[in-house]
Amino acid sequence: MSTVVSVEELADLVASIFVRHGMTPENADCVAEVVAAAERDGSTSHGLLRLAGYVSTLQSGWVDGKAVPVVSEVAPGLLATDAANGFAQPALRASAALLRKKARTQGIAALAIRSSHHFAALWPDVEPFAATGLIALAVANGRPRMAIWGGRKKILGTNPMAFACPRPGRPPLVWDQASSMIAQGEVLLAATRGQQLPPGISLDAEGIPTLDPNAVLQGGSMMPFGGHKGSSIAFMIEVLSAGLTGGRFGFEDNSAAYPGAQTSNAGEVVILIDPLHIEESHFFERIELLLEHIAASGAERLPSEHRYERRERALREGIAISDPNWTKLHDLLA
Amino acid sequence: MSTVVSVEELADLVASIFVRHGMTPENADCVAEVVAAAERDGSTSHGLLRLAGYVSTLQSGWVDGKAVPVVSEVAPGLLATDAANGFAQPALRASAALLRKKARTQGIAALAIRSSHHFAALWPDVEPFAATGLIALAVANGRPRMAIWGGRKKILGTNPMAFACPRPGRPPLVWDQASSMIAQGEVLLAATRGQQLPPGISLDAEGIPTLDPNAVLQGGSMMPFGGHKGSSIAFMIEVLSAGLTGGRFGFEDNSAAYPGAQTSNAGEVVILIDPLHIEESHFFERIELLLEHIAASGAERLPSEHRYERRERALREGIAISDPNWTKLHDLLA
Repeated sequence: MSTVVSVEELADLVASIFVRHGMTPENADCVAEVVAAAERDGSTSHGLLRLAGYVSTLQSGWVDGKAVPVVSEVAPGLLATDAANGFAQPALRASAALLRKKARTQGIAALAIRSSHHFAALWPDVEPFAATGLIALAVANGRPRMAIWGGRKKILGTNPMAFACPRPGRPPLVWDQASSMIAQGEVLLAATRGQQLPPGISLDAEGIPTLDPNAVLQGGSMMPFGGHKGSSIAFMIEVLSAGLTGGRFGFEDNSAAYPGAQTSNAGEVVILIDPLHIEESHFFERIELLLEHIAASGAERLPSEHRYERRERALREGIAISDPNWTKLHDLLA
Repeated sequence: MSTVVSVEELADLVASIFVRHGMTPENADCVAEVVAAAERDGSTSHGLLRLAGYVSTLQSGWVDGKAVPVVSEVAPGLLATDAANGFAQPALRASAALLRKKARTQGIAALAIRSSHHFAALWPDVEPFAATGLIALAVANGRPRMAIWGGRKKILGTNPMAFACPRPGRPPLVWDQASSMIAQGEVLLAATRGQQLPPGISLDAEGIPTLDPNAVLQGGSMMPFGGHKGSSIAFMIEVLSAGLTGGRFGFEDNSAAYPGAQTSNAGEVVILIDPLHIEESHFFERIELLLEHIAASGAERLPSEHRYERRERALREGIAISDPNWTKLHDLLA
């Protein structure tokens, strides 16, 4: 049995849970929106599954649910926003209108968020900008889970990157990926199921390759995707998300002092480009041509198409919450 | 036996060869500098090895050695430069001072080069900016050699990306990597030597996985590094380098009409960020801290360190050119 709710009803319910655990209604709305969006799009790993983690993190005192982000215009093309130990989404929301305006007038603009906790998918941070015609790139860092190429110990987060390419009259083409070979969640799942990991993706605490998910969880490391190349990408993300912003590097994480804390106090960078400034490029027409050629090369599905299909269905039919999950939701509200 | 020349002498000699084959002295100097720099740093795959290709491309009429780049300031943070069917390096040189100034004043600035031929390594395009304290990112596209993830036919170039992180009083930390699993040169080498390719890196003309380098060269495709994740990066590079700039997409390549042409008429994007605008970040101090922690994690060598060591030696002792190579160089001058 299950209960069917609309996306909006789900977002409201999640927001109530966040308010119940100490967030301001404004901050709760922001974060609840991305949780509901993940559930709506079938990104269940970043949906309701994370709610208990949000709540235990709030309860631990590690993140400030009442944080008020401070947006500074440090240069005509650059915003520096202090998330003030709150979630990244309120900081992004506080900066978004000005960032968008800057991209339109300057051609390119960047937002550097520091002291932020990002526990959601990264695609919701770029999609809305691309939906208004801007090219958008976002990167974020986090607590160490991954070794750098050639290293033996975890030093970087699974540092995700998301990119959104606008399309006229259609939802943007968006991708969002971690810099690690597999997600932390998959390691947890393998440990729970007593399964081995595939070879070549993880090291134990001594830096020796291992197939044992428990060895990874007990001080071991994941490895970057694509060997040294993915490692380079993860390094760039660390330089931008923590170095440029002034957020904490992964290795500066001290969440262990807050039992129940599941997020990282880190940073995020969003870069927007307005393609309309270069008239000769006929950007929107030509991107459609590129996508046609990509489809003709045999790639049957573009990134994010799956999500949009599931989204359409969820918006039409609602989201079914199983009875056990429905009970859990209401337990978190109690 | 070999002849030892200084880096400057080598650059002058290469420039003379380019002038001999129809380049203006200004353009020849720009391109010769990156060829000599590659040789100096031991990046031999992008050094003298490519000279014959530069010359045959010039002779074919495919690239214009006399091109005069046109720089347009399309927005306060955005330059659009038409390389006018010339090499990318003169276009970059014509734009560099203004781009740097824009990054300093705007916080972030981008250069979009179109109608450009890039036949060199990409790190020389970012290193000089980072040497003056800016974070620099460059991407370029090229003729199709690679399938997108899930596709069966080549549709994208080996689309490289280069990133440079400035360090005070020390050369920048720079990486430069193709989006393909291996370089085109390695496929050529395997074919020459009659060797098989490693599994999982290439497709034949029908889109079937193959180990045969000749099948790759005869209409087959290379595969992106890191599976769908590297494919996403390569797609982003195509959107920026050709979509944003107005350069040609890989699939629009028609170099086959110019026998001897080895370059792609494509595009490039360079993005610069000035980290000093965000005072709270103490960027330069903190990047050193990050690098210390990375070294302590067991990564014995940072990207570009190898190149700097070889550079120092070349600047001190000169570059030894073997007699056969010396003869080839002078043959190209005749």
